[in-house]
Amino acid sequence: MRFLGLNKLPIAQAHLRALNNAGVNSVKFYSATAEPKEPVVRTKTIPGPKSVELNKKLGEIQSTGSIQYFADYEKSSGNYIQDVDGNVLLDVYTQISSVPLGYNHPRLLNLFKDDKNIKTLVNRPALGVFPGKEWPDKLQSILLQVAPKGLNKITTMMCGSCSNENAFKSIFIWYQNKVRGTAKLTEEEICSCMVNMPPGAPELSILSFKGAFHGRTLGALSTTHSKYIHKLDVPSFDWPIASFPQYKYPLEENVAENKKEDEKCLAEVADLIEVYKKKGKPVAGVIIEPIQSEGGDNEASPEFFQGLQRICKQNGSALLIDEVQTGGGSTGKFWCHEHFNLESPPDVVTFSKKLQLGGYFHNDDFVPKEPYRIFNTWMGDPGKVIILEEILKVIKEEKLMGNVASAGKVLKDGLLSLEKEFPNLLNSTRGRGTYLAVNSVNGKVRDSIVANLKLNGIQTGGCGENAIRFRPALVFKEHHANIVLDRFRKVLKSL
Amino acid sequence: MRFLGLNKLPIAQAHLRALNNAGVNSVKFYSATAEPKEPVVRTKTIPGPKSVELNKKLGEIQSTGSIQYFADYEKSSGNYIQDVDGNVLLDVYTQISSVPLGYNHPRLLNLFKDDKNIKTLVNRPALGVFPGKEWPDKLQSILLQVAPKGLNKITTMMCGSCSNENAFKSIFIWYQNKVRGTAKLTEEEICSCMVNMPPGAPELSILSFKGAFHGRTLGALSTTHSKYIHKLDVPSFDWPIASFPQYKYPLEENVAENKKEDEKCLAEVADLIEVYKKKGKPVAGVIIEPIQSEGGDNEASPEFFQGLQRICKQNGSALLIDEVQTGGGSTGKFWCHEHFNLESPPDVVTFSKKLQLGGYFHNDDFVPKEPYRIFNTWMGDPGKVIILEEILKVIKEEKLMGNVASAGKVLKDGLLSLEKEFPNLLNSTRGRGTYLAVNSVNGKVRDSIVANLKLNGIQTGGCGENAIRFRPALVFKEHHANIVLDRFRKVLKSL
Repeated sequence: MRFLGLNKLPIAQAHLRALNNAGVNSVKFYSATAEPKEPVVRTKTIPGPKSVELNKKLGEIQSTGSIQYFADYEKSSGNYIQDVDGNVLLDVYTQISSVPLGYNHPRLLNLFKDDKNIKTLVNRPALGVFPGKEWPDKLQSILLQVAPKGLNKITTMMCGSCSNENAFKSIFIWYQNKVRGTAKLTEEEICSCMVNMPPGAPELSILSFKGAFHGRTLGALSTTHSKYIHKLDVPSFDWPIASFPQYKYPLEENVAENKKEDEKCLAEVADLIEVYKKKGKPVAGVIIEPIQSEGGDNEASPEFFQGLQRICKQNGSALLIDEVQTGGGSTGKFWCHEHFNLESPPDVVTFSKKLQLGGYFHNDDFVPKEPYRIFNTWMGDPGKVIILEEILKVIKEEKLMGNVASAGKVLKDGLLSLEKEFPNLLNSTRGRGTYLAVNSVNGKVRDSIVANLKLNGIQTGGCGENAIRFRPALVFKEHHANIVLDRFRKVLKSL
Repeated sequence: MRFLGLNKLPIAQAHLRALNNAGVNSVKFYSATAEPKEPVVRTKTIPGPKSVELNKKLGEIQSTGSIQYFADYEKSSGNYIQDVDGNVLLDVYTQISSVPLGYNHPRLLNLFKDDKNIKTLVNRPALGVFPGKEWPDKLQSILLQVAPKGLNKITTMMCGSCSNENAFKSIFIWYQNKVRGTAKLTEEEICSCMVNMPPGAPELSILSFKGAFHGRTLGALSTTHSKYIHKLDVPSFDWPIASFPQYKYPLEENVAENKKEDEKCLAEVADLIEVYKKKGKPVAGVIIEPIQSEGGDNEASPEFFQGLQRICKQNGSALLIDEVQTGGGSTGKFWCHEHFNLESPPDVVTFSKKLQLGGYFHNDDFVPKEPYRIFNTWMGDPGKVIILEEILKVIKEEKLMGNVASAGKVLKDGLLSLEKEFPNLLNSTRGRGTYLAVNSVNGKVRDSIVANLKLNGIQTGGCGENAIRFRPALVFKEHHANIVLDRFRKVLKSL
């Protein structure tokens, strides 16, 4: 991505001056408020009594089994989330990795002091039919600015699932165009697709990996394999599923074994592509996360990804890298796959979460020739793009990628130390930037650690069978990392 | 829905007073600005030269085949959309039926003068895990206030497609719970669903109708059958597809024949449910639009819907009514299916578009017992709910449902007159409220009418093979209807 080369951005002060000059100087602007010095836990249990009461109320109108507590977002600030019972937690989970600048960042609050931005919020267009006059410029100056190198086309969506679903469709259309070649579309194709049958609705497949998470709508869910409760009772496409490498840690002591694991998994991919071709369900595309997140923060080596890309090319399958959770800076690069030194760009890269809206980057080959093939009413949301614009400015101006590197190093080194100090409780520290995880010995101990961390003021998340994941915002700094590590040590000692 | 019984709403003035008392009296508030008196067309073609230029620019970064022109949303007002070339069109298409109050409604613009609302925009939570303290109240006082009668549960989503996809999942889970009864979940179910196979990922189906449109992600697309270009090249589930009634107009002159059509289509539904049961793909649910919109504004009678519900009950299939396009007031009732006098509430009702976010209403049976079964990162968007809240207040305070009735009558009567005046060009006027359509004799003539209407200052939309659809905002009044009819007559005379 060309993010680091980004320039011509007005700085915050200039932006405010412009607003003031525009005659809105009577509007009160936010300035940075100090975030709490450290977490404060006021209740014996979290959720506390007020959260429990609200949960009961909400339970009358919807399912609440996944709710941890009710937050007071007006009082939350920076890296700290405050709940309705007055507990102030250092948040290193950040709404399942979707908050780049922490809570109530003044730059984001001030954004809507600008009437132009309010009009953008209130007049939401059908972007595929009647885009606003600023839309081409916004896409160019905001989204294409952070495009993965080599991908010059962007399709905007709303969330991670619909980004993957539509990326699949782009891949299927691309694949069938290759199959069709110069042949004309037949009447049989047209009629059969209308009743869900081949050849018009062909039996193509997307290969995914065990442990993967790519979303929960029916197409995306057919490539998700992280937890059975996500999939049970839902009909699925019969698409191939390969093994994702399972490494031994520390990596530097298990080089040969992990290399063998890569080779085994790659051989399985090649084999499955062959099997599904013979089965009449050719693999149009392969979808993979740079780090399997929901599935347990499972990493794979750059060599694995390079090998996977080669297999895709050999077989005419598109490579889709799902950066919904990894994208946006917290791995130390704006896109995690930039760490992999791929020989050429991936074909499609999907995003959402920290980028506020969904979508995918791709090259010319994945732009459908006919209109309305990739389409929906809204096709994204300009109201989210103006928030993203400000986020990207802040990342640059406040040098937040530097934060990620320095705070990430402190946190990772600290986790490695804790792992040595508590070998019976922790192992396999891994990850990039602040996008880190460590395993506990089993799910029960992991759950107990996550719960106790919360009671000690640290909001983390679990993933996979026994991992604890860290997903701090980009404003997370070294001193926050030290607070996390201190509390973590306290919790481990108490177990 | 209990919308008409809604009370205790602060009126606009009280709201502004409260804001002023809160110490923000220096903020400039919008007041109603007069919308243009009539359309103004300044360019010989639409898109005009500036739109063409912007389209070229956008074409460098994404597909633009469906774009009609670029709008200037800052200058658009009420029922009038202004494009970048200065053309001012009376908009009776409203961003594919998604704009309830027209452009730049002052009440919506003023909403974000309230800092509390800005904080809601900027701190977007993972609603399924860390909802804000206001969330239970907001759901209760906003969404449940407009809930279809008998449906007391709400699940929020982002758009129409993901609302239908998740509603399908709720239906599948409900259906399998019935099949499972008191039996425990087996290891085989757990393991098989993880690799996309039965019995854990069972071969269940959703029955849909020819001509239906329910979205474009892979599950929703398997129930969409409006245009082949939406479906071509995309793998699909083999799910049953029944005929939707095709009526002869005027209805009052074709009662017996249309009744037979209903019976034929209902028999087909019953038959397909039997066939798919034998095929090992039982019909867990039936999805239907109250008026098939993208498919051509095809209506079915209340008796048809009553009969369909009876068949669903007899066969243990859930009835899902998709009100994504019909919901929100423009059919003369807040939900179109309220016109049908169903014996009992439908099982699930999905929505999006005019309601700003997506979601579905349902009863207790469709709440999954286990957490994380229906889940995603955001689960909706409180920033959209606060806009919806204000929209509902305005609908009530400005008595917009009255507009729909009176303007709808003028427009429908006028279309019926035009149909008599131009029998070789128009037929089959139909619809409810302002949610109206008329057929042209074929697709070519229809396209020509829609294009000429635009050049005469009226933005309509096509649907199905030869229909022209009208989707005005709820602020569309009798005098707007008269402008549409005058221009329509002029266009028809010129053909």
